[in-house]
Amino acid sequence: MNITQEAVLKALSTVEEPDLKKDLVTLNMVDKISIDGNKVSFTIILTTPACPLKELIRKRCEDAIHEHINKKVEVTVNMTAEVTSTRFGTTPVLPKVKNVIAIASGKGGVGKSTVTSNLAMALTKSGAKVGLLDADIYGPSIPTMYGVENGKPEVTEVDGKNMILPIESLGVKIISMGFLAPAENAVVWRGPMASKALTQFLGDTLWGELDYLLIDLPPGTSDIHLTLVQAVPVTGVLIVTTPQKVALADAIKGVAMFRQPQINVPVLGVVENMAYFTPAELPDNKYYIFGKDGGKELSRRFGVPFLGEIPLVQDIREGGDNGVPAVQDADETTVKAFEGLAQGLAQQVAIRNASQPKTQKVEIKV
Amino acid sequence: MNITQEAVLKALSTVEEPDLKKDLVTLNMVDKISIDGNKVSFTIILTTPACPLKELIRKRCEDAIHEHINKKVEVTVNMTAEVTSTRFGTTPVLPKVKNVIAIASGKGGVGKSTVTSNLAMALTKSGAKVGLLDADIYGPSIPTMYGVENGKPEVTEVDGKNMILPIESLGVKIISMGFLAPAENAVVWRGPMASKALTQFLGDTLWGELDYLLIDLPPGTSDIHLTLVQAVPVTGVLIVTTPQKVALADAIKGVAMFRQPQINVPVLGVVENMAYFTPAELPDNKYYIFGKDGGKELSRRFGVPFLGEIPLVQDIREGGDNGVPAVQDADETTVKAFEGLAQGLAQQVAIRNASQPKTQKVEIKV
Repeated sequence: MNITQEAVLKALSTVEEPDLKKDLVTLNMVDKISIDGNKVSFTIILTTPACPLKELIRKRCEDAIHEHINKKVEVTVNMTAEVTSTRFGTTPVLPKVKNVIAIASGKGGVGKSTVTSNLAMALTKSGAKVGLLDADIYGPSIPTMYGVENGKPEVTEVDGKNMILPIESLGVKIISMGFLAPAENAVVWRGPMASKALTQFLGDTLWGELDYLLIDLPPGTSDIHLTLVQAVPVTGVLIVTTPQKVALADAIKGVAMFRQPQINVPVLGVVENMAYFTPAELPDNKYYIFGKDGGKELSRRFGVPFLGEIPLVQDIREGGDNGVPAVQDADETTVKAFEGLAQGLAQQVAIRNASQPKTQKVEIKV
Repeated sequence: MNITQEAVLKALSTVEEPDLKKDLVTLNMVDKISIDGNKVSFTIILTTPACPLKELIRKRCEDAIHEHINKKVEVTVNMTAEVTSTRFGTTPVLPKVKNVIAIASGKGGVGKSTVTSNLAMALTKSGAKVGLLDADIYGPSIPTMYGVENGKPEVTEVDGKNMILPIESLGVKIISMGFLAPAENAVVWRGPMASKALTQFLGDTLWGELDYLLIDLPPGTSDIHLTLVQAVPVTGVLIVTTPQKVALADAIKGVAMFRQPQINVPVLGVVENMAYFTPAELPDNKYYIFGKDGGKELSRRFGVPFLGEIPLVQDIREGGDNGVPAVQDADETTVKAFEGLAQGLAQQVAIRNASQPKTQKVEIKV
């Protein structure tokens, strides 16, 4: 039997994308089929370069060809990715940003900025185009964590409008109040001034085309949070918590805010930070200093995915203090924890984009 | 030689109060001198019941009597305390509160609420009258830490005005947004609403007479902070930090805010929280997970007293989660750390009151 393009497509139409629950052909994920005698190659267009199901899908494609065409076919599955979006090109602010992802916690000091900086790094390493907006106007940590504390963004004119050029570090485009105010001074502003800064970071920054723009939110549920959801459609929110009761209490408030009917931003998942400490001398001991499984319980309670736990590791803190996120060159456990989180989050974004409509900007005054 | 009242006073006028650098008689600290044959007793009125110099002063009084009167006199030194104030009776809001002490950090999650709740407890145990105002409107933790999450403050009429009665737990008078909003809901408010809540907590709460009102501030340097310094003269501020770079960066901003010329609230000291972790199995090991000595460096840099380091101890977190501050019944190291902090802070308040004029309310718009 001769191998045909149709036969290949028919075979691949039996392969289901595990998350999106439709077959690869229906999802338009198959491209560049090439047949050369007994050799077949094609490209699968994933919904994110950080797709954790890459190898599973590859294997299923090979199996489908062997089963439906011929066991002896030499199959080459190439992988590429095109990040999906519900907002691309549809919104006046950030029109070329495919996904705007807010990172929130309710409580401060749970490691939101550490998680965000490592997430941005892990997504960039996977091949995605990533921006990072540090929305903590009063206590910006991101420039320190990326070693660009002295970054001074340039301004360029685009269509007669002055635009800020984000600072690029380790492949991530960054904007932060830390670039604009001296480190030794406090930004003593009431809410409207801080909101104005955020609006500029969103609308007057030359982000270019991005797959993911991560927004590192400040603690609380106040001006910055409201201004964000009023300014742009937010694809979804990641909740960061530590396991102790008082952190969970605030994380619950964070979830409650985004789920208010008039705000209604999908919660993509929960990650538990500082889950346990393991001294080098006692590698088998896990000290649950801040309590155990609080993040898991939170995700169960709200019916949202649990995207993993990040241990309390000196490496991670040092990475932040030294300006290179730990996922770049820490030990294997740490790297795996953050890569797993990035994959899980990207996966949830893809599922959200395939199953839920675009988030609406909040129009009413809240 | 007969012992006389004058001789006792003359002897005691050679004893210097170590902090205030004046003698006990000049400072009006000697009271109730009683002479009965060879027995002399008197009362020393300390500037705070949490005075860390109590035993030193007692010893010096005994020595002075023996040296200047007679070696064989039987001396009894009674100790009492009258907390000093620069603001008592001089201000329309909180007129009967001797000292308003703000606890600030810049960064969230450094354990501000944990430190504040333990400080309040330690000062109360020493004999002081203490109030605790939880100014974290969006993420109130104090009710959980005092086991009064279901507290519902009553309202009473005083001189035709409705006043809120604070909830009393373990001897501390507490007010918090946690008493007014359900735990599972977010308080999604812009700044002015949050400021209004703070103003009510300050002015419409029946605090009664207090030696110390501790104000647990939210992270940042924004509406709540500005409203506080505009509403009342604040005696001083305690800065809480953890040792890592990104926390210190925010603590520096916190200090900078209170030192702005138009705000000008004295910084009483710095305390370093989560200084190190010691596993029970390795009692001699200190793991400086968040770095080392950051708080000490901060205090050196700003020339303010370093009031101690609090270890990262599971007991402390559990105390907070279980509603009984750790200083109440944790192990000795923890209790001593917080008692030492309370003594150091009370001492700095006394020094500040003796050496600096009353803080002025911030009048200009900032």
